[in-house]
Amino acid sequence: MTEQSPAPTTGTVPHEAIAFARRAELLGHRGLTVWLTGLPASGKSTIALALEESLLESRRAAVTLDGDTLRHALNAGLTFDAAGRAEAVRRAGEAALLIAQSGSIAIASLVSPYRSDRDLVRARHATLGIGFLEVFVDAPIEVVKARDPKGHYKMALKGELPAFTGVSDPYEPPLSPEVHLRTSDTTPAECVATLMSAIAARTAS
Amino acid sequence: MTEQSPAPTTGTVPHEAIAFARRAELLGHRGLTVWLTGLPASGKSTIALALEESLLESRRAAVTLDGDTLRHALNAGLTFDAAGRAEAVRRAGEAALLIAQSGSIAIASLVSPYRSDRDLVRARHATLGIGFLEVFVDAPIEVVKARDPKGHYKMALKGELPAFTGVSDPYEPPLSPEVHLRTSDTTPAECVATLMSAIAARTAS
Repeated sequence: MTEQSPAPTTGTVPHEAIAFARRAELLGHRGLTVWLTGLPASGKSTIALALEESLLESRRAAVTLDGDTLRHALNAGLTFDAAGRAEAVRRAGEAALLIAQSGSIAIASLVSPYRSDRDLVRARHATLGIGFLEVFVDAPIEVVKARDPKGHYKMALKGELPAFTGVSDPYEPPLSPEVHLRTSDTTPAECVATLMSAIAARTAS
Repeated sequence: MTEQSPAPTTGTVPHEAIAFARRAELLGHRGLTVWLTGLPASGKSTIALALEESLLESRRAAVTLDGDTLRHALNAGLTFDAAGRAEAVRRAGEAALLIAQSGSIAIASLVSPYRSDRDLVRARHATLGIGFLEVFVDAPIEVVKARDPKGHYKMALKGELPAFTGVSDPYEPPLSPEVHLRTSDTTPAECVATLMSAIAARTAS
C-alpha cells in the first residue's frame, strides 16, 4: 500500500497483532472478504442482502458493506471521480480486512469500476493472509439499462449524471474473478447457493 | 452524522440492511464496540491485545483497531491536528460499527483525545442500536512520562514532537465512561477480567 499510504509524520509504529492463522485456530473458522463488483443495477445489493441473510441463518457472522450506504458513513464526502472512487474502494477494503480479521464474513457490494483499485484490495488481503473472493456480478448493459430501478441510467443518458458508471464513466470487468455470476439468466437464490459453497470451502479452519 | 457526513452529490441512497436485533437473534449473541481511550503509554495497547486474546480463547470473535496501526492503513495520510484526529476517530468508529454489526467485538485502542469526537462515535452506535463501551485507560501523567516506552514523551518535552497528546496537545478525559481502569495500580490481567465481565453483560442476545 505504499502507493496510497504515506507513512505518518509523527512516530506511529504498527502494534503487535494476533496472526490470522492463530485466530482461525482459536475460533474454529476463518473470516473472509467477499467482494461483489459490477455495473449499477447488475444485482449486487440484492445478492449481498440475500447472502448475508443466508449466512446469518447458518449462524455465520457477516455484514454487508454497501457502496451507497458507505457514501453516507465511512466514505462520506468523497467524490465520484477516479480519485474519489479509489479512496472509497480503499477504505471499504480496509474495513473489510478488519471484519474478516475478526472472524466474520465481509460482503462488500460496490460498483468498484477500476481493476487497479480492486487489485490493491486483493493485494492487501494477500499480505495479511486473509481470503479474498472477487465476485463479478455480470449483467449486459442493455439489461441493466432496462432494469434501472432508481432511474439513474435514464438520467445519465440525458447527461444529467456525470461520472455514472456504464454510461459516462468506464467499468473494467475482472479478468479472473473467483466467481462469475450472470444475473440475467440466474436467480438470486442460485447466485447465493453458488456463493455459499465458495465461502464454505474458504472459511473452514 | 450530518455534521461530518455531507450527503453525496450523485444519487446514492442507503440500502436496506438487516436490523441489529435480528442479527443478534440469528447469531445468538450481540456484537459490541469496546473503545479504549487514554494518554499515550497509559496501557491501551497492552490491554487491547490481552483482551483480544482472552475473547478469542473464549471463542468470541474480536479484532483490535489500534490507532498507530490504523495510521498505516484506514487512516493513512491523515494529519495529527484536531481535524486529522477527528477524521481518524470518525473512520475508526465507522469501521468498529461494521465489525460490531457483523457480530464481532471491535476493540478500538486510540488516544482519541477529544471528547466531542468520541461522543460522535457513541451517538452513531446509539442510532444503530449497537452497544458502545467507553473505557478510560487512566494513568497519571507522571507515570506515563516515566514509562515512555517509545521515547515520545522525552522528544515532545524537548519540543521535537508537535501535537503530542499530554505534552503539546490536550487530552480530555471521559466524564462518565462505562469502565474506568487505573493502570498505575491494577495489573493488565485485572483490567482484562473487569472488561470481560462488562462485555459478557452486554453481548448476551
